[in-house]
Amino acid sequence: MAGDFTLKPVNPLDNIRIVLVETSHPGNLGAAARAMKVMGLSRLCLVNPKCAIDDEARARASGAVDVLDAAVLCGDLDGALAGTVLAAACTSRRRDLPHPDLTPRRAAPELLLQAAAAPVAVVFGSETFGLSNEQLGKCRWLLNIPTNPDYASLNLGAAVQVVAYELRCGLADRTLDLPEFTPASHEEVEGLLGALEETLVEIGFLDPAHPKRLMPRLRRFFARAGLEKEEVAIWRGIAGAARSRGRR
Amino acid sequence: MAGDFTLKPVNPLDNIRIVLVETSHPGNLGAAARAMKVMGLSRLCLVNPKCAIDDEARARASGAVDVLDAAVLCGDLDGALAGTVLAAACTSRRRDLPHPDLTPRRAAPELLLQAAAAPVAVVFGSETFGLSNEQLGKCRWLLNIPTNPDYASLNLGAAVQVVAYELRCGLADRTLDLPEFTPASHEEVEGLLGALEETLVEIGFLDPAHPKRLMPRLRRFFARAGLEKEEVAIWRGIAGAARSRGRR
Repeated sequence: MAGDFTLKPVNPLDNIRIVLVETSHPGNLGAAARAMKVMGLSRLCLVNPKCAIDDEARARASGAVDVLDAAVLCGDLDGALAGTVLAAACTSRRRDLPHPDLTPRRAAPELLLQAAAAPVAVVFGSETFGLSNEQLGKCRWLLNIPTNPDYASLNLGAAVQVVAYELRCGLADRTLDLPEFTPASHEEVEGLLGALEETLVEIGFLDPAHPKRLMPRLRRFFARAGLEKEEVAIWRGIAGAARSRGRR
Repeated sequence: MAGDFTLKPVNPLDNIRIVLVETSHPGNLGAAARAMKVMGLSRLCLVNPKCAIDDEARARASGAVDVLDAAVLCGDLDGALAGTVLAAACTSRRRDLPHPDLTPRRAAPELLLQAAAAPVAVVFGSETFGLSNEQLGKCRWLLNIPTNPDYASLNLGAAVQVVAYELRCGLADRTLDLPEFTPASHEEVEGLLGALEETLVEIGFLDPAHPKRLMPRLRRFFARAGLEKEEVAIWRGIAGAARSRGRR
């Protein structure tokens, strides 16, 4: 008997990870799971959670306990982003960071487009401390949910709800174009940035004792461009050539 | 002394009542209040609530306890809708009712337009029973929040959050502030690409006899990123360091 070679269309929502970093209230874990499932999302990833998935979490999850139970635990953000080609951090407005500012509404179509081919992530920080600059630096986009400037304290579960809602709405609007090129994975981008940094030190452009803002600037530049797999190879080649030149 | 005849522009959000009918969980009262305030809404109306505004409600309201404390209690829906010119009931999809079906996104602009002149209301039913047909009949519009057809159980506080978010987005419909950076000029970009090409030849990464597609690829990469003036300087510095290294 011939096998079934029918290609199943990928549901982009199945490729979208909701990553919660250092969450401290179990109720928010449950609320996030329910917010996800009600909009059709199911991949929950918990980075170093500061609370357990307890009775309160399960009560708030209601019929979405399955999402909670299937949550993947990670020790750090790199683990949670492994294999993703695009990560967006949901954060309150940060004027100190030069990332491009996006609303979930503007970001949703592109997140869905990428998710049609490979995993993407939306990252939420802890209730009290949000995300560190280092963590933000690992995300290509910053998402700001529009809020009342006089009281912008959006609950974590509510923030997940808004983003999940926009993803569901975007799904309906979506055209079926696939990305033209293969985006680089999180690990490939981080690996390249590490190699570039070493190269810049070796060629004497970056002083490790006084790094200033060079690497954050380059990080931001590459984030804006959105590296493709082939481009990672090109930049690695360039870095390699720059280093070996000094040794000839 | 002449009076101050300056007309204050009405904030439509101040004319939008959130009406919760027969709510049974105090946590949802608090969550609704916080969801409202974070989006700039403040008029909460409780019709025949089945629970008290207790410590749990206040805890979940967080910094929006003022909205809870200012909530107006009504014995029935008519009381809550008194003086409104438009009421929309938020409900899961009801195929048995001949009301026009609207999403919050489609409804928000008209709700805001009406609210610029007179009070309007968005009505939410109880967690278990929703709204009765009689109550729905008192509302001009039915709002359906798009959800996962396999699990459409949106939490009450989360539903208020989505509607409040849409009202804020509709209000603002503001263009996002553009990042404050100075884009590089055409000449600067071209100059940089020329310098990069020379560098790549000099460090032995680009063979002028067989250039392949390297420069077009890099050109495309830089075009996608959109170079800023300062970044041109950084990349020129990197290129310079890579070249001089070979000469030391």
